[in-house]
Amino acid sequence: LSKEKWFSRLEEIVGAEYVLYPTHDDFSKYEHDETEDLKFPPTVVVRPDDARQVQEIVKLAASEKIPVVPRGGGTGLSGGALAVRGGILLTLERMNRILEIDDQNFFAVVQPGLITQVFQETLEARGLFYPPDPASRGSCTIGGNIAENAGGPRALKYGVTKDYIYGLKAVLANGEAVTFGGKRLKDVTGYNLVQLLVGSEGTLGVVTEATIKLLPFPKYHRTLLAPFQSVQKAAESVPAIMQRGIIPCALEFMENDALKAIENYRGVKVRFSDYPALLLIEVDGNNEDVLDEEIQSIAEVLETNDVSDVFVAENAAQQKEIWDLRRSAGEAVKSISPYKEEDTVVPRSKLPELVAGIHQICDRWGLRAISYGHAGDGNLHCNILKSGLSDEKWEKELPLAAEEILRLTVSLGGTISGEHGIGYTQKRFLPLAMKEAELEVIRSIKKALDPDNILNPDKAVY
Amino acid sequence: LSKEKWFSRLEEIVGAEYVLYPTHDDFSKYEHDETEDLKFPPTVVVRPDDARQVQEIVKLAASEKIPVVPRGGGTGLSGGALAVRGGILLTLERMNRILEIDDQNFFAVVQPGLITQVFQETLEARGLFYPPDPASRGSCTIGGNIAENAGGPRALKYGVTKDYIYGLKAVLANGEAVTFGGKRLKDVTGYNLVQLLVGSEGTLGVVTEATIKLLPFPKYHRTLLAPFQSVQKAAESVPAIMQRGIIPCALEFMENDALKAIENYRGVKVRFSDYPALLLIEVDGNNEDVLDEEIQSIAEVLETNDVSDVFVAENAAQQKEIWDLRRSAGEAVKSISPYKEEDTVVPRSKLPELVAGIHQICDRWGLRAISYGHAGDGNLHCNILKSGLSDEKWEKELPLAAEEILRLTVSLGGTISGEHGIGYTQKRFLPLAMKEAELEVIRSIKKALDPDNILNPDKAVY
Repeated sequence: LSKEKWFSRLEEIVGAEYVLYPTHDDFSKYEHDETEDLKFPPTVVVRPDDARQVQEIVKLAASEKIPVVPRGGGTGLSGGALAVRGGILLTLERMNRILEIDDQNFFAVVQPGLITQVFQETLEARGLFYPPDPASRGSCTIGGNIAENAGGPRALKYGVTKDYIYGLKAVLANGEAVTFGGKRLKDVTGYNLVQLLVGSEGTLGVVTEATIKLLPFPKYHRTLLAPFQSVQKAAESVPAIMQRGIIPCALEFMENDALKAIENYRGVKVRFSDYPALLLIEVDGNNEDVLDEEIQSIAEVLETNDVSDVFVAENAAQQKEIWDLRRSAGEAVKSISPYKEEDTVVPRSKLPELVAGIHQICDRWGLRAISYGHAGDGNLHCNILKSGLSDEKWEKELPLAAEEILRLTVSLGGTISGEHGIGYTQKRFLPLAMKEAELEVIRSIKKALDPDNILNPDKAVY
Repeated sequence: LSKEKWFSRLEEIVGAEYVLYPTHDDFSKYEHDETEDLKFPPTVVVRPDDARQVQEIVKLAASEKIPVVPRGGGTGLSGGALAVRGGILLTLERMNRILEIDDQNFFAVVQPGLITQVFQETLEARGLFYPPDPASRGSCTIGGNIAENAGGPRALKYGVTKDYIYGLKAVLANGEAVTFGGKRLKDVTGYNLVQLLVGSEGTLGVVTEATIKLLPFPKYHRTLLAPFQSVQKAAESVPAIMQRGIIPCALEFMENDALKAIENYRGVKVRFSDYPALLLIEVDGNNEDVLDEEIQSIAEVLETNDVSDVFVAENAAQQKEIWDLRRSAGEAVKSISPYKEEDTVVPRSKLPELVAGIHQICDRWGLRAISYGHAGDGNLHCNILKSGLSDEKWEKELPLAAEEILRLTVSLGGTISGEHGIGYTQKRFLPLAMKEAELEVIRSIKKALDPDNILNPDKAVY
């Protein structure tokens, strides 16, 4: 078909008002996501309203061999939603309905364009809980969370997105609409195709519906801040807490520079901002006495690890204040200068080595790095700042420093992305984490399910 | 190669004493697993001791196009470990070591031949917990549990095998040794190949090592028995308990005939054996007061659902007695007559419909069915008994009745296997649960990773 023909076919499928061309006012927002300053204009943006429309779009793309790039909230940090070869940007934002909340079986059925925070708050009002909690929850979508297998601070106790996705409807590259899994806590019927799609970054199918496991909403929280004189001591506290049988619902880490960055960015004094390392620890549950005991027990553990001080939030307002500060760490650090973020993850006992190693590497390259992240699960967000560096030096040396950091991460038993995905920007680093025979498995699955490389080309697969 | 040549090559790889031929005393045990009375003699049994030997065996098999059937404890219930085309039966029982228990990161690294109960008990002695708890835990292996994604009674609160497997080393059909995942609570580096292997029944790779997430061992348990006048009332109690924010670690269901079968088989009086339906409910945690409150709260919920009585175990001995009886349900029912077990699973609110529907179907065919299982996760083990039926009628009509039961299960939003796997015996029922386009995804993955169909042929893939 001529370009005009498939444009008009798209207009037939979704309605003319839901096909956006480059002249459209809103078009530019679909050229980028939240990954650095990358920009890739798609040929056309299509906004379907239901699974049948998605299927028709993919069928058209398959027969014309046009790339299809699925997109959720556009908050991705590895370029997963960028139309790097042009083609059809398929945004799922109109498909944002909660189709069912089943409080007999503790499952919800939702469309992919649903905003994560809207989902969480709707559930909370009914005493139900969906734990995955990416920092972008106010604007990211469940579909995007599924594509990237999004994480967040509650992973230690509650797991990540994959642990809640029990069923998916999707459109495959061949245009077939399929259903994998469902409202079943146990299911061994064939390969685990639900988990093959979760985290596949839209390269194997476009998710049109998800069946999500829910939990009862925990009634109470206790939140504690603990400053340390060293990253080492902070990190050593974590297994000691677990060994007391306590699994905190959050165990966050910030180094001093991150605290200072928050202070400057927000223009407020941040508690304990003069200490080298800070832990934020939260426990949740349905019994306040137990939570008070747990906080007491955690404080005892911290004492034996030379904690410098302990602050327990006295009320919900103080808890919110602490979390607002923690959540602003990313923005604060990134406001300092152009940056490159690495989403490193290691076994949590290796966190001190990782933090120290990152500083050594950056010192050697004359770069500055600021790290914060999830101490409970070893997922450290390391922001390398350009600061005073010349453009030339930054462009030449940053990739070399970044590669050294990722090599160090892998050498510590970690890997190159904990929760941001491989997408477009991290793809070339995949060989640091995987051998050729392992990469070949990914390639051969992609080829088996999408031989013409229609779905989100140049992502995830190396 | 001639048969003699590849036999001697196998002897070179593992040592002559670890290659068993049909004349060997132990050979016959490798001809069957626990699936009905099926028997398939392999050509040869090989007992490797390390991953390198496994790799050499698979390489030989690949170059000679000989089927390789991996085997754990041989306790499977869907024929996954049967050498249905002959070839090499590769038993992993010698590779049974715990390689590491990492109590800093709460991970263990083990070989596939490790007996599940040995693993659990070793961990418990160190205050650590691996929750998946298949009924065959005394003789099944971690590798077999991974192959089948084994479940058990703790799935409602703690999930199943897949939820604990974070890293795998495996040998692929092409003889490549690969490592997927590792000691990382978050990992979005490429497709989730760990979860593709879990539950793939040895058709995509032979697992040689697993990295397994651990939890702190819960210190206390409370166990309760609750008889009801109807299955409906028993089932309705389950969501009501969850809605109070309590997630029991076990929520087991037995119907009257199962209780009577246990009574007859064990020759003891079983508590509440005169009631139509019985729930066994257990809660666990680290605070005895909380558990007592939870049991109290559960008892209140049960009262509003017309429970006939409530018995709370007073000590560990009574708890053990209850669990011994529950665990013997399978053997007891199966001792009555030849049987066929269906491993049905539905959204738990559909359990009463499933139980009633099974009885209607069996009545219509003149068959008797006895059901018990996991009410919390909707996984019902339904045993169809031959009893007085003629061989001819049994052989002709059983498959028709079984198919009706599985159709009913699927129509209720369930599927044809919750935890026993598809293996050899359930393969032909796959089209009841999956559409052609969905089956084709499984086929195409199998073909991409094992084009010559070397690894466990005729299993899982339809």
